[in-house]
Amino acid sequence: MKLGELAEALGGREVEGDGAFDVRGVGTLEAGGVADLGFVRGEKFVAPLRDSAIGAVIAPEGVDVGPRPVIRSAHPSLDFARATGLLHPATRPAAGIHPRAFVDPAAEVDPTASVGPLASVGAGSRIGAGTIVHANASVGDDVVIGRDCVLHLGCCVREGTRIGDRVILQPGSVIGGDGFGYEFDEQGRHAKVPQVGNVVIGDDVEVGANATIDRARLGSTRIGRGTKIDNLVMIAHNVEVGEHAVFISQVGIAGSTRIGDRVFFMAQAGAAGHVRIGDGAFVGARGGVIHDVAPGERVWGFPALPERTWHRSQAIFGKLTELVRRIRRLEKKVGGGDA
Amino acid sequence: MKLGELAEALGGREVEGDGAFDVRGVGTLEAGGVADLGFVRGEKFVAPLRDSAIGAVIAPEGVDVGPRPVIRSAHPSLDFARATGLLHPATRPAAGIHPRAFVDPAAEVDPTASVGPLASVGAGSRIGAGTIVHANASVGDDVVIGRDCVLHLGCCVREGTRIGDRVILQPGSVIGGDGFGYEFDEQGRHAKVPQVGNVVIGDDVEVGANATIDRARLGSTRIGRGTKIDNLVMIAHNVEVGEHAVFISQVGIAGSTRIGDRVFFMAQAGAAGHVRIGDGAFVGARGGVIHDVAPGERVWGFPALPERTWHRSQAIFGKLTELVRRIRRLEKKVGGGDA
Amino acid sequence: MKLGELAEALGGREVEGDGAFDVRGVGTLEAGGVADLGFVRGEKFVAPLRDSAIGAVIAPEGVDVGPRPVIRSAHPSLDFARATGLLHPATRPAAGIHPRAFVDPAAEVDPTASVGPLASVGAGSRIGAGTIVHANASVGDDVVIGRDCVLHLGCCVREGTRIGDRVILQPGSVIGGDGFGYEFDEQGRHAKVPQVGNVVIGDDVEVGANATIDRARLGSTRIGRGTKIDNLVMIAHNVEVGEHAVFISQVGIAGSTRIGDRVFFMAQAGAAGHVRIGDGAFVGARGGVIHDVAPGERVWGFPALPERTWHRSQAIFGKLTELVRRIRRLEKKVGGGDA
Repeated sequence: MKLGELAEALGGREVEGDGAFDVRGVGTLEAGGVADLGFVRGEKFVAPLRDSAIGAVIAPEGVDVGPRPVIRSAHPSLDFARATGLLHPATRPAAGIHPRAFVDPAAEVDPTASVGPLASVGAGSRIGAGTIVHANASVGDDVVIGRDCVLHLGCCVREGTRIGDRVILQPGSVIGGDGFGYEFDEQGRHAKVPQVGNVVIGDDVEVGANATIDRARLGSTRIGRGTKIDNLVMIAHNVEVGEHAVFISQVGIAGSTRIGDRVFFMAQAGAAGHVRIGDGAFVGARGGVIHDVAPGERVWGFPALPERTWHRSQAIFGKLTELVRRIRRLEKKVGGGDA
Repeated sequence: MKLGELAEALGGREVEGDGAFDVRGVGTLEAGGVADLGFVRGEKFVAPLRDSAIGAVIAPEGVDVGPRPVIRSAHPSLDFARATGLLHPATRPAAGIHPRAFVDPAAEVDPTASVGPLASVGAGSRIGAGTIVHANASVGDDVVIGRDCVLHLGCCVREGTRIGDRVILQPGSVIGGDGFGYEFDEQGRHAKVPQVGNVVIGDDVEVGANATIDRARLGSTRIGRGTKIDNLVMIAHNVEVGEHAVFISQVGIAGSTRIGDRVFFMAQAGAAGHVRIGDGAFVGARGGVIHDVAPGERVWGFPALPERTWHRSQAIFGKLTELVRRIRRLEKKVGGGDA
Repeated sequence: MKLGELAEALGGREVEGDGAFDVRGVGTLEAGGVADLGFVRGEKFVAPLRDSAIGAVIAPEGVDVGPRPVIRSAHPSLDFARATGLLHPATRPAAGIHPRAFVDPAAEVDPTASVGPLASVGAGSRIGAGTIVHANASVGDDVVIGRDCVLHLGCCVREGTRIGDRVILQPGSVIGGDGFGYEFDEQGRHAKVPQVGNVVIGDDVEVGANATIDRARLGSTRIGRGTKIDNLVMIAHNVEVGEHAVFISQVGIAGSTRIGDRVFFMAQAGAAGHVRIGDGAFVGARGGVIHDVAPGERVWGFPALPERTWHRSQAIFGKLTELVRRIRRLEKKVGGGDA
């Protein structure tokens, strides 16, 4: 692709230097080659650029990129992401149902969708236009999947799930497993509470590899539009997540918790059941929320504390031996003693 | 289903009001409709009930439910769970081996069991009466599975596993992966220790989506009857778990640890290897057990502390800056100083 | 197998007692039988040995094992692991592609490899000599897998992955899922950053059940030779792991972090993105690394502290109420007070 065409495709960006430069692919400054396109965020990458073999770059206005051709951009990393998609378009399988797939006769697969070998689609399910169901993925009965979704290898979508458009399920992710619900019976044993609800996933959601989202006991577990869920995250039954929220890897959210729009959970964090986490709240890595969190609030630690409190307490935690020494010194001076 | 019939099916409960009321399904007080059955645990739900459209309820004796018909119950949530199962019976696939399944000629599948499309059952394995193996699930060689089990989409049961009756494996769960065992060889590299044991799972166990239970090095990893394991839990090789224990999501148990009956692990907790955790013990969320825990003991934190100690220390942790201020003030008064 | 033959196969170890003793299998001292082989590490197992039914043992020189025959070894646990492999050789399926597997016509499977029922292998992929792809496993397009690997039930290997020799993927493990990368677009929504790199796994690596290793944004996520990864571990995009590193269960490593040779992560630990962890470093259970760790350094806690600091602070944490009491006593003496 010519650099000039690429600049055009990115929304009419300005090119300095040879617009006819032939871009082969994208690369990093360290490993990219003379036919690759890289990017820099600002001035501090001028020195690395000098040592780089990279053939062309996307860079903010005014940043010196040396003799190479450049696409000027106010959002170089965003434009680079888009350029990556244009230069390395995902290959897609042929439309249609692979002869080695199993699609129940009572399912509807759009003729532009692809169902791969050894994938299964249950009775009453509908697969939308352009959606790809990869090999060994399984879709249960009465599932509705929108258009232009990708279900990667081996993911599982249980019966009754509703999935919007452009949703991506990474390999091994599980949508609609039973919620974890029991009642003690008269003998004090756990009697399973039937989980007769479902999962509803909005448009543009991505679910990471081996992540799990459980179906509701009654009603629906809901994941709002644009929310991104990383690998090995657990979302329990009846959780409701707003739009454009982010869950980094290995986060766990317990049942019936409500999470607002644009909430951000860092890795290995969690939330107890039945709490509310307001729009734009932030939970630091390993944070464990057990009470409601106000919109925009930032918390860390378990049980979660306000960000500044946690940082300060954590800093003192590392110096507790010093604190003990100071107390001992005081006790000696005033004649106190341990007892 | 008539309300009166339902009350009868629940064990002969008393109905107040119209026993001929036709119940369509179950619902919550918030979202349920005029043909739905809900439940309340006690007096504090009287106000929400007043605002609810719900058609009928299960409620304890004496609680005012308004004009709607009611099933009186000493265990309303348990009876509601049972009513859910009666009103929304799980659909089950036809008995038999789906033509697109693969069942080894040397396996035995009870004629009342169902093996779904693209599921596999290995040589020497036996699938009991009424058991359902859903699409894309895989059962290795020489596995024995009891009656009325459900193996959901894409779960994996490796060779030699023994599974009791009424066991449920949620999608993507893995039973019988190799334990994580190595010995350093003469060159200081990790030599794999063959894991030649198996996994034995008792009756009425449930294993969550993408949870993993490893096979033993020698002998068996054992999960006792009635134990419930949530999503993404890890049970390592040679662990022995008693009956009716509970493991909430993302718990990890290291090798050879013994866990008694009715032990409860909250979410994201863990236990080191080779420890014993007594009957009825409780490990709080994120608790990390590294020493034995006595029967009935309650612990939190990592390394785990007695519940009360942890709660108090944790409360002080959030106020460590105040503690430092108090020490500084004391030092000023008595002429101490930091050095 | 005769005990003498076994001793020979272990590298010519010395036998005391009946070399013609017929060993049936391996066992523990507690559960092993009269035809089984056990092992002891040293003198402290002499008493348990006395009570054991075990027929023969591997033991260090000079340890009294009673009347039973013994293989003398300087590395009894290593030799026992090897003996286990010799006495319980893993059964392997017949070579060849199972008629119910799907192998793309444009894939190459070595004639000595085995592809099981309902497993899939994509176009352009190559499966090396002796490698086993078990039932319901899926290999995407353009994957290269070396010789003598084992891909267990239901594991998923996405397109472009490179896997060395003797690599073991436990059931449900996912290699090559998309890295978790987004850029905010002009509307403040998350735009997916295409993940066009791959995963490269060296020889003798093992990946645990339901563990996930993400593909790189650009270039490769790399797992060095001999590294062992336990169940439910998450390795993010562009991480580079050295040789012979160990990741115990439920560890999470964020993007672009570099981990040296022989680094050891205990269970449920983690590392932030873009940090460097030197050769031979050790991260304790639940440790959370957010800054670089020097070679050989040992850290615990989150944020990670030097091992000794953490242990001391953690010990004081459990006694914070006592610390508060001591401060209060001091305040009373010197007339301080809380305010």
